Amino acid sequence: WKQITKMDFGFILLLSLIIILLGTVGSHFLEPETFPTLFDGFWWTMTTLTTVGYGDYFPVSVGGRMLGIFLFIFGIGIIGVLISKTVDSITTFQKFKREGKL
Amino acid sequence: WKQITKMDFGFILLLSLIIILLGTVGSHFLEPETFPTLFDGFWWTMTTLTTVGYGDYFPVSVGGRMLGIFLFIFGIGIIGVLISKTVDSITTFQKFKREGKL
Amino acid sequence: WKQITKMDFGFILLLSLIIILLGTVGSHFLEPETFPTLFDGFWWTMTTLTTVGYGDYFPVSVGGRMLGIFLFIFGIGIIGVLISKTVDSITTFQKFKREGKL
Amino acid sequence: WKQITKMDFGFILLLSLIIILLGTVGSHFLEPETFPTLFDGFWWTMTTLTTVGYGDYFPVSVGGRMLGIFLFIFGIGIIGVLISKTVDSITTFQKFKREGKL
Ligand SMILES: [K+]
Ligand SMILES: [K+]
Repeated sequence: WKQITKMDFGFILLLSLIIILLGTVGSHFLEPETFPTLFDGFWWTMTTLTTVGYGDYFPVSVGGRMLGIFLFIFGIGIIGVLISKTVDSITTFQKFKREGKL
Repeated sequence: WKQITKMDFGFILLLSLIIILLGTVGSHFLEPETFPTLFDGFWWTMTTLTTVGYGDYFPVSVGGRMLGIFLFIFGIGIIGVLISKTVDSITTFQKFKREGKL
Repeated sequence: WKQITKMDFGFILLLSLIIILLGTVGSHFLEPETFPTLFDGFWWTMTTLTTVGYGDYFPVSVGGRMLGIFLFIFGIGIIGVLISKTVDSITTFQKFKREGKL
Repeated sequence: WKQITKMDFGFILLLSLIIILLGTVGSHFLEPETFPTLFDGFWWTMTTLTTVGYGDYFPVSVGGRMLGIFLFIFGIGIIGVLISKTVDSITTFQKFKREGKL
């Protein structure tokens, strides 16, 4: 059971990294004027996947917006699971520590 | 059981598409100055339903804002369920593949 | 059981309406320059509680921002429950209809 | 059991306060031009952790954005749990009151 959970976390993390990479590289190459550096594309991808959406960066072309909608549908959920699993790990770690199991 | 889940996913998807269509067409016709093309209305609808809200588009009229609030109340939850079911499908697919069932 | 669920929905709805009213009236009176009409305050409250946050309206005074943070902590969760219960109602209604119970 | 839940709430609250403090102090010192006062840093931290993201404040430096991404990954989930536990407390309080247990 522990094994499965660990593998699932690894799978979610891998999928998240692939989606973040797609957003970073895709935005920079589809709209170099909007996302002048790869770091700008990465920053936009992170603000998008977490749904913070400051509005300092956003795509304006059809291709860029299609990438955005891809991130919405396939990325927001995956990052949400990753963030929720991160919180679970922290609270479980604390519970174990408190109970003297660590 | 599988049948029911499949129907539920179909129902959620259909409802999502209807709400996205309402947002796209509604915004463009209620505020053509704010949403000059149907694709602009579609892009605003998607940024709204996912709660990303970049702020590159937003309604300014009473009618447009009422449409926005309709999308908030009836759309955000439906899209949330759709995104969460999409993630479930991906993780289930991966689990089945790993276990050699596919 | 049905009774309790119904009462809970009513309680959540009542709480939501009180919080929306507080945000609407509070923002307009704390910062009349930022929120010139009550409808502007209502629109900002709704974009805040749903975490869409277009950025067309936001408080700039200490009082207005404290109201914002109050809405974040006590409102986002309540509206989230209301939206999720609305989705549940729609899917349950559809399930009942399909099964011929309605 | 009650004891554990209470401790968990305390732990989540403590973690939230630490993350809010890190965001407030970190943003102000990493980017004093963007966040001129500690209260500006606090306001940006709260709009970020709740994913409202008005866009009135956002980091522009590499360090500031790294702090933002830290808040995304470790903060959004924790604040989400805090907000959801706050809602639970309110509904439980109401249920107890209604049932005459308070
Ligand atoms: K947002
Ligand atoms: K936003």
